[in-house]
Amino acid sequence: MTARAEALGVALRPHLKTAKSVAVAGLATAAGAKGITVSTLAEAAYFAGHGFRDILYAVGCAPAKLDDVAALDRRAGMTLLIDSVVAAEAVAAHPHAYRVLIEIDTGDHRCGIAPDSPELLAVARAVEASGRSRVAGVLTHAGHSYDARDAESMARIAEAERAGAVRAAEILRAAGFESPVVSVGSTPTATFARNLSGATEMRPGVYMFGDLFQAGIGTCRVEDIALSVLATVIGHRPAENAVVIDAGALALSKDRSTEAIAGGDLGYGVVCDLDGRPLPGVIVSRVSQEHGRVTSRDPLPFASLPIGARVRVLPNHACITAAAHDVYHVVAGGLSVESVWDRCRGW
Amino acid sequence: MTARAEALGVALRPHLKTAKSVAVAGLATAAGAKGITVSTLAEAAYFAGHGFRDILYAVGCAPAKLDDVAALDRRAGMTLLIDSVVAAEAVAAHPHAYRVLIEIDTGDHRCGIAPDSPELLAVARAVEASGRSRVAGVLTHAGHSYDARDAESMARIAEAERAGAVRAAEILRAAGFESPVVSVGSTPTATFARNLSGATEMRPGVYMFGDLFQAGIGTCRVEDIALSVLATVIGHRPAENAVVIDAGALALSKDRSTEAIAGGDLGYGVVCDLDGRPLPGVIVSRVSQEHGRVTSRDPLPFASLPIGARVRVLPNHACITAAAHDVYHVVAGGLSVESVWDRCRGW
Repeated sequence: MTARAEALGVALRPHLKTAKSVAVAGLATAAGAKGITVSTLAEAAYFAGHGFRDILYAVGCAPAKLDDVAALDRRAGMTLLIDSVVAAEAVAAHPHAYRVLIEIDTGDHRCGIAPDSPELLAVARAVEASGRSRVAGVLTHAGHSYDARDAESMARIAEAERAGAVRAAEILRAAGFESPVVSVGSTPTATFARNLSGATEMRPGVYMFGDLFQAGIGTCRVEDIALSVLATVIGHRPAENAVVIDAGALALSKDRSTEAIAGGDLGYGVVCDLDGRPLPGVIVSRVSQEHGRVTSRDPLPFASLPIGARVRVLPNHACITAAAHDVYHVVAGGLSVESVWDRCRGW
Repeated sequence: MTARAEALGVALRPHLKTAKSVAVAGLATAAGAKGITVSTLAEAAYFAGHGFRDILYAVGCAPAKLDDVAALDRRAGMTLLIDSVVAAEAVAAHPHAYRVLIEIDTGDHRCGIAPDSPELLAVARAVEASGRSRVAGVLTHAGHSYDARDAESMARIAEAERAGAVRAAEILRAAGFESPVVSVGSTPTATFARNLSGATEMRPGVYMFGDLFQAGIGTCRVEDIALSVLATVIGHRPAENAVVIDAGALALSKDRSTEAIAGGDLGYGVVCDLDGRPLPGVIVSRVSQEHGRVTSRDPLPFASLPIGARVRVLPNHACITAAAHDVYHVVAGGLSVESVWDRCRGW
């Protein structure tokens, strides 16, 4: 992803909401990165405590969190995000001088202001009304790139993301707001964008691990997925062509995102051998809290899955599955743990 | 639930997989309970460390966990569960003398042996082959009670659960296995069973909190739900009749169990005011990692949901949502925290 950012002429500000891990952040920033991105103030505090600086909190900031952001800003350098006059007024009323990005909606319609909306300048004016806080620029997240299924569609969404964010920055600059930052990017658009001119940075995150959904939409291959859940076979149900493992909804999550990929519904994950090689067609098709039901359209290889056998399950959605676990056990294969990497959680 | 157990003539062994909290366990057992039920060895160790004794680990025990179960048994008294000859042989080969329940399938087909299967006695013989471990009885979980939608259906499933477990115990006893324990029960069957004769204990769990799914199938009322996720309004999208909150997939979970209730799909949860009163028809209809999109078929009450407003979200499935959080903040209303209750997690 560092090479992608260089080729596209933007800085990489990796989003650490997936990994939430200092060790992973170290790898993601080792080849050069302009700060980091987080999704919670708990992540910001965790990374600040481990020496990371220039942290972008990329979820709209609730007014009640402004004191915490100010403390983190003094400690590590923070940028916050808003998309409303109400939030801008809270920022301006606060004694702290914040660096503020305005969130732009470039088609995802989750959050953000349309580039041509008069609200854009109203928010910018409100931010700077008290003369303390400054509009540092704009941010957008083309989350609807997750709905695309081919490189051409993703490239088109990436271009709309870029163009909308750049347009918003130009409007702000024409009105006298300096707005140096134009922040874009998800893993799909970072992977498939052809031109990011005018953007200054991108914020992909899930590329660090990959997952079955990302493989399904083509941003990685299944063999690139770096995250799996270790489980043990605890039951055989030969009459039902099913095996039971001790990993269920809590260990795997209830994310069903591969359901949205035509022909690519993988239940709650793909079952692999202990070294992470997928057992062809074998998936976790049903979960309860601590049980996973493993099935296949073909006869299951019961002999390779004796009771007590260890398997690995690749996740549909790495961000959600990783959040169920307190640490990463780093293995080169098998069960030999080379390192234990901590991660943060909570809010 | 204590009164239900007394009325039905069985002991209550509350399942603590939902709450995973010593404080909640104290309430659940205050009126008398015969030990507790857990779903992981992490829970067993946590409750043992807080003085709880007579712990039933109600998920099929993988052979590799037997050492840990033995250590917990010496410390707090443990009963384990199996449903295969392979697992029974591992138990018998271990130097520790275990108390073993055999899991019976009474219609859920998740785990367990059919009462009339010859495998039942094969497993019992294998458990006791070395003369150390003993068959303490049978356990069943009618998880398919979650598919029932009325009291009559749930009572019928409860009767099948009871009859199947009692039948299995009778077969074991006739073959010379003492098998004193006949353990049944989910919250739905515990709530709607009319007769549990022959059963000795029941293991409901989610009744301690309730959730939208349980309200949907009639085991509690919405106003009984004791668990909610506190969130803050961070965005308004009036053109889309939507509000954005800072609680998404990680805080609420991706559980969609109310989708299975005809006419009762509540998205990712019901939005309430700060005191927990539901806003009629207002639900979280979409989530990403840290964002929830709040919508309604009717015009949203934007004036009651200003940016910065606190709301509470009732969960579809308490077991899964609670697992996303490290502690419970106990409130009588509003934001005034009366207690903080810890909980355990992991495996």
